[in-house]
Amino acid sequence: MRLTRYFLPVLKENPAEAQIVSHRLMLRAGMIKQQAAGIYSWLPLGYKVLKRLEQIVHEEQIRAGHIPLLMPTLQPADLWRESGRYDDYGQEMLRIKDRHDRDMLYGPTNEEMITDIFRSHVESYKSLPLTLYHIQWKFRDEVRPRFGVMRGREFLMKDGYNFDLTREDALHAYNRHMVSYLRTYERMGLTAIPMRAASGPIGGDNTHEFLVLAKTGESEVFYDAKVPELKLGERAVDYDNRAEVAAICEEFTTLYARTDETHDEAAFAAQVPEERRMVGRGIEVGQIFYFGTKYSEAMGATVVTPDGSRVPVEMGSHGIGVSRLLGALIEANHDEKGIIWPEGVTPFHVGLVNLKQGDAATDAACAELYAALVAKGLDPLYDDREERAGAKFATMDLIGLPWRITVGPRGLASGMVELTCRRSGESEEMSPAAAVERVAAIYAGL
Amino acid sequence: MRLTRYFLPVLKENPAEAQIVSHRLMLRAGMIKQQAAGIYSWLPLGYKVLKRLEQIVHEEQIRAGHIPLLMPTLQPADLWRESGRYDDYGQEMLRIKDRHDRDMLYGPTNEEMITDIFRSHVESYKSLPLTLYHIQWKFRDEVRPRFGVMRGREFLMKDGYNFDLTREDALHAYNRHMVSYLRTYERMGLTAIPMRAASGPIGGDNTHEFLVLAKTGESEVFYDAKVPELKLGERAVDYDNRAEVAAICEEFTTLYARTDETHDEAAFAAQVPEERRMVGRGIEVGQIFYFGTKYSEAMGATVVTPDGSRVPVEMGSHGIGVSRLLGALIEANHDEKGIIWPEGVTPFHVGLVNLKQGDAATDAACAELYAALVAKGLDPLYDDREERAGAKFATMDLIGLPWRITVGPRGLASGMVELTCRRSGESEEMSPAAAVERVAAIYAGL
Repeated sequence: MRLTRYFLPVLKENPAEAQIVSHRLMLRAGMIKQQAAGIYSWLPLGYKVLKRLEQIVHEEQIRAGHIPLLMPTLQPADLWRESGRYDDYGQEMLRIKDRHDRDMLYGPTNEEMITDIFRSHVESYKSLPLTLYHIQWKFRDEVRPRFGVMRGREFLMKDGYNFDLTREDALHAYNRHMVSYLRTYERMGLTAIPMRAASGPIGGDNTHEFLVLAKTGESEVFYDAKVPELKLGERAVDYDNRAEVAAICEEFTTLYARTDETHDEAAFAAQVPEERRMVGRGIEVGQIFYFGTKYSEAMGATVVTPDGSRVPVEMGSHGIGVSRLLGALIEANHDEKGIIWPEGVTPFHVGLVNLKQGDAATDAACAELYAALVAKGLDPLYDDREERAGAKFATMDLIGLPWRITVGPRGLASGMVELTCRRSGESEEMSPAAAVERVAAIYAGL
Repeated sequence: MRLTRYFLPVLKENPAEAQIVSHRLMLRAGMIKQQAAGIYSWLPLGYKVLKRLEQIVHEEQIRAGHIPLLMPTLQPADLWRESGRYDDYGQEMLRIKDRHDRDMLYGPTNEEMITDIFRSHVESYKSLPLTLYHIQWKFRDEVRPRFGVMRGREFLMKDGYNFDLTREDALHAYNRHMVSYLRTYERMGLTAIPMRAASGPIGGDNTHEFLVLAKTGESEVFYDAKVPELKLGERAVDYDNRAEVAAICEEFTTLYARTDETHDEAAFAAQVPEERRMVGRGIEVGQIFYFGTKYSEAMGATVVTPDGSRVPVEMGSHGIGVSRLLGALIEANHDEKGIIWPEGVTPFHVGLVNLKQGDAATDAACAELYAALVAKGLDPLYDDREERAGAKFATMDLIGLPWRITVGPRGLASGMVELTCRRSGESEEMSPAAAVERVAAIYAGL
């Protein structure tokens, strides 16, 4: 993409309304625009990252054997009356009356609707196990929306629901979700720690939250210093292998890691040597629940078992806050100049800065480099504006592309361009062809 | 995908509520489930086609130089008060009050919001031309939703908005949209005819609707028999070349083609020889508008011109009904057995039917074929259920995959499988390797 043909409305000033760095940087980098309290437009750069995150979530869910569908944003109130949550949910639920005065609501989550889909179409244990998920906009009418997309009202969430015959099967589904989530966050360049959590309005005993460590996190967290070092890495996972999946979960949840809601000071002291006892703050970016038959009993979602009897289906629900992940990513990856995207989620793979726009030789070299990058399957952003070098560098640093190639007449005279790493700030001179190869190799490894 | 691991709840009976064939077939093929009047869940098969259509729309918009972003579903009422449409829009607009009693609405379209984004960020003619679009769920509270996804209340629409300095520039954007839409529909296997239309609530003089011919269409259409034969085909289009783009528009809009709203019997008789005068019905699947400064004037969206003055920006808006396209596709592509997907939009590339599930040799041959198809980058659906051949064929015919490979012990004895074309019904015996090559070649050509 050529910047002169793109829509990247960066701001020079720090917006007064933004209290945390991710909100400030998303506004300054032209990623979002607030349309009402807690409701945002995703401008092209923000939308591009959002789509990238969505894609990673889809890929990892499908890899785990989960099946995508899409439920609507609006739901009839009657479904929620069946589960008893219509009255319980309180003012966070956006209630709507349509033109025929029917009670509707903007879905804050989908346990009821997915249970309705299940009971309408599934009869037998033979159709199990089954995990359905969607990535859809939700609405929670927060009394005080703040922190940009971190606590918005209209937000994008992946929510998945498992249906199993037995508690044991459902706990395998729970574990499968935990592992698929670990891989999802790792691919995004995040360290998200599963922590035992309290259950809240979804219900259920077994539940873990995934927290990204960041100073601005809303939760206080207590953890063994060894926990953030755990990595899933490149290991292949057979999601049908219960023992293998369970062993990974054990590996990631045995060491002490809790939020303030479930923290136990005595256990912390007993289990963790003092020098490894860490207290910090975390941003919640996902949560998994096993809640058994809570919804299936209330809503009559039963299956015929091998012995011919009928039992309510065992369920759990599992969510990733996709839009809020952008905020968490920036909280965990920025410096005073701006955002630093991990390669796995960057909106463009590499920035191309022309130091002398209008100079025939420099323009030609940039055009050639651009074409060579595209030919390698890369998606570069070419700053072809007639601007000073300083302004171009400031924009690239602000929007946080992990790599930048700088092309100027002086370097070209000796056949060189400069490749700069956004995170380290280090630059290296090399030929244009070598720069293309280097950048291609970095992304080929992802 | 193995069918035993998928969620494909096909119905044996014709659902009583469905009045038209696309609605009936989408329900029977397990593509959608109604959750409230005019509000549907997209079950896995339906969601897969919807995503495919969305992808084609994105690719063709990006090819035309248009930039994706995403606006929220909910909008503040104040924006619509600025344009004057808050009162004009009537009961089709779903009006909502949030917990602080603020007036909101579920967006039925986005002229106001995109104009707000533009005026907040663009100052100068130097940022033009600019076309922004999104694909987002909309809501129109139809008094009598019907025909399944063809006239739903919550529906997925691509809406794009061009911003230009002059009327001439804006008309080029209009033409660019027309050509990109022609290519979009052709890739989906649809013949969509641009017809001059009346303007309706968006406003503007220049407007064309795109209609797919189908007996169940809501509009009566009058056209020259030569019009449906026009094809864009494989020709490369330079979207920056005004003359080239305008010439394509002329080619597709010169012959007579009008809806009942703009039909002129005298002109029809004068311009079209009697034997080519066709009267039929059509389904609207898109519409483009040039409306000049209607919204920019009302909302103060101006730019500084080269001479330093300020003018309201020239605009148009351009929509494709993405979710309704599924209905239109099925109306135009089905027979008494079920759906017949065009290759460009099919949810799975090929069906694989095992005639003797549980037989070691047949199972092994199917597993091998499946792996070979996947290795070619194809997405097969393998019916591995323990069902009679007749039931498997009926399911494949109902869900409409364009190609089917049938594997049975008798054929395998002579090293043969059967490749069947859904549309023609013709079958051919060949080796498994040849079947894989043939199917791969069909999709490689798309």
